Amino acid sequence: MHRLDIDLGERSYPILIGPGLLEDADLLEGAVAARDVLVVTNETVAPLYLERLKRGLAGRRVAAVSLPDGEQHKTLGTLALVFDALVEQRMNRDACVIALGGGVVGDMAGFAAACYQRGVDYVQAPTTLLAQVDSSVGGKTGVNHPGGKNLIGAFHQPRAVVSDVGTLRTLPPRELRAGLAEVIKYGLIADEGFLDWIEAHLDALLRLETAGIVHAIRRSCEVKAGIVAEDEREHGRRALLNLGHTFGHAIETATGYGEWLHGEAVAAGMLMAADLSHRLGWLEAAHVERVSSLLVRAGLPTTAPRIGATRALELMGMDKKVLAGRIRLVLMRRLGEGLVSGDYPADALRETLVAHFGEAA
Amino acid sequence: MHRLDIDLGERSYPILIGPGLLEDADLLEGAVAARDVLVVTNETVAPLYLERLKRGLAGRRVAAVSLPDGEQHKTLGTLALVFDALVEQRMNRDACVIALGGGVVGDMAGFAAACYQRGVDYVQAPTTLLAQVDSSVGGKTGVNHPGGKNLIGAFHQPRAVVSDVGTLRTLPPRELRAGLAEVIKYGLIADEGFLDWIEAHLDALLRLETAGIVHAIRRSCEVKAGIVAEDEREHGRRALLNLGHTFGHAIETATGYGEWLHGEAVAAGMLMAADLSHRLGWLEAAHVERVSSLLVRAGLPTTAPRIGATRALELMGMDKKVLAGRIRLVLMRRLGEGLVSGDYPADALRETLVAHFGEAA
Repeated sequence: MHRLDIDLGERSYPILIGPGLLEDADLLEGAVAARDVLVVTNETVAPLYLERLKRGLAGRRVAAVSLPDGEQHKTLGTLALVFDALVEQRMNRDACVIALGGGVVGDMAGFAAACYQRGVDYVQAPTTLLAQVDSSVGGKTGVNHPGGKNLIGAFHQPRAVVSDVGTLRTLPPRELRAGLAEVIKYGLIADEGFLDWIEAHLDALLRLETAGIVHAIRRSCEVKAGIVAEDEREHGRRALLNLGHTFGHAIETATGYGEWLHGEAVAAGMLMAADLSHRLGWLEAAHVERVSSLLVRAGLPTTAPRIGATRALELMGMDKKVLAGRIRLVLMRRLGEGLVSGDYPADALRETLVAHFGEAA
Repeated sequence: MHRLDIDLGERSYPILIGPGLLEDADLLEGAVAARDVLVVTNETVAPLYLERLKRGLAGRRVAAVSLPDGEQHKTLGTLALVFDALVEQRMNRDACVIALGGGVVGDMAGFAAACYQRGVDYVQAPTTLLAQVDSSVGGKTGVNHPGGKNLIGAFHQPRAVVSDVGTLRTLPPRELRAGLAEVIKYGLIADEGFLDWIEAHLDALLRLETAGIVHAIRRSCEVKAGIVAEDEREHGRRALLNLGHTFGHAIETATGYGEWLHGEAVAAGMLMAADLSHRLGWLEAAHVERVSSLLVRAGLPTTAPRIGATRALELMGMDKKVLAGRIRLVLMRRLGEGLVSGDYPADALRETLVAHFGEAA
């Protein structure tokens, strides 16, 4: 078991990574201080791992609520089910919410914990690669609004993250690949050496070899945690983590949440960011090709739907990261070094959008 | 205009108290930094004060959402209307939410501001005495759940509080009296001299004489702010502010939200706290009588509904301030000095409950 400590002063917490952690009673005794626990999970994950986690939590009062599975259910309406369960089980301020599932479960369980009685503890037990490398680090929680993703939420840090890599064996391969998109992202924005390592070990990662997977998760969390620690409330550098996301949001919104996986949209979006970075003279054509071929090897999509550049721009404009009307994008100065900029020629962005989304209708 | 500065480090803010503030453009220019504003109000207050506030905010982009009036609408469902308005108006992270109304509007607008894009600014413009002396100070925001009041919420400090005492002229007298219950509370828990002052100036307060009202609001906010500053996240001393509230919650829950005003339930509850403090030997019978007669002079109820001691205890047990199953109550060591204690004989509490709620059915 590997342990990574996230240093956030009073809100510091450990990330524990390894196989078999969900039923490791000794480990959970340290990670979950509360005696009253509500496990928030979903209908897909519950049959696979809920009983296992309950065994690991033996000796506590454990209740569970199972939510419908899917990003389309990440709403205030579904969130109310978690509040109902907390109230029905008479959970008090000393209770702990455990999120057992992917990013959607984590975001909702974390937001419910942030709001219930104005804040109770929560622990993340992510069961997807995406959640293990991304959404379980950084303290962002929330739900979607019909007008946009994650428009309603809170910053609320977990008390611990318990990443049982054994759960990846039941993850659909498509979701594993979507998680790898975020792993690749960390290489692109912050660590060229890690990017090299991913290229060298991609086949082992796709085969879920434990040592490789644990390293990929650990290094991803380290990169993300380093950035988050510098900028907990997302005023500056943290925006780097959104490489590919603004482009990707346009894809997700145009196709309706759920058709494209988040990581898939991010993959296609990262290639667009590389394309624009090339047009601005920062990346060479060979670098863009290197990004593209790594994404293809990882089985990720690199071709956006042909919704047209104008529609794509409009959808990017509604993205919540817009600063006073100006679209700031995460680009790459070189492979392994991201930057956030709103200072680029509008034509260059338009060329990238036309190349990937097609001409305006 | 009187100004009271609440010192909370980075989150410090001013409370501005006086007549005519809602249409004072110069004052609002200082208090509301944002250029994009969503005013959250309700169907009762909007016709009285919304246009006035909009005049005061001239030069900004101002949108408004009017909620149904009443505690029974302080729900996640009503909150969604505020999120809908924020999204529809394309308010971004630099926007400001202004709460124009009483405590219910303030709690919901503040909670929406806490969650929208994980936190935008908000300013309180309270139009009831209760909101001016209580709910606009302290940073508590939230909504009710069918299982209990304020079970879902956040701590989110306003950027400013603009208390226009002119709005009290349109307040129903019953609500004015309910606000006075909280003013009396500050005297009881923290300042015997202020209690003397209230007794001497009660008639002037009931007549809404400006100088008296401004002093009552200012001193109430000072007492509350002093306690909150010591204990922003409600781990200890802040509980003093709940004098009468745990008893009062039982009344409000038993009768359904809305029949008793919050301040009315607190008034009856404060008398119960005085009664129990007397049974514990801390207050003399004459002190309890003094509390009772002040509440009666202020036109507040001192007689609880006869729901029976057992039912009352059960309803108090579901109160969210319960610490690991034990009911901690705010009591009075003497007039002007509150204390929080779970260390009292169960029989004494039972005697108080029987005296006020009647025998068990």
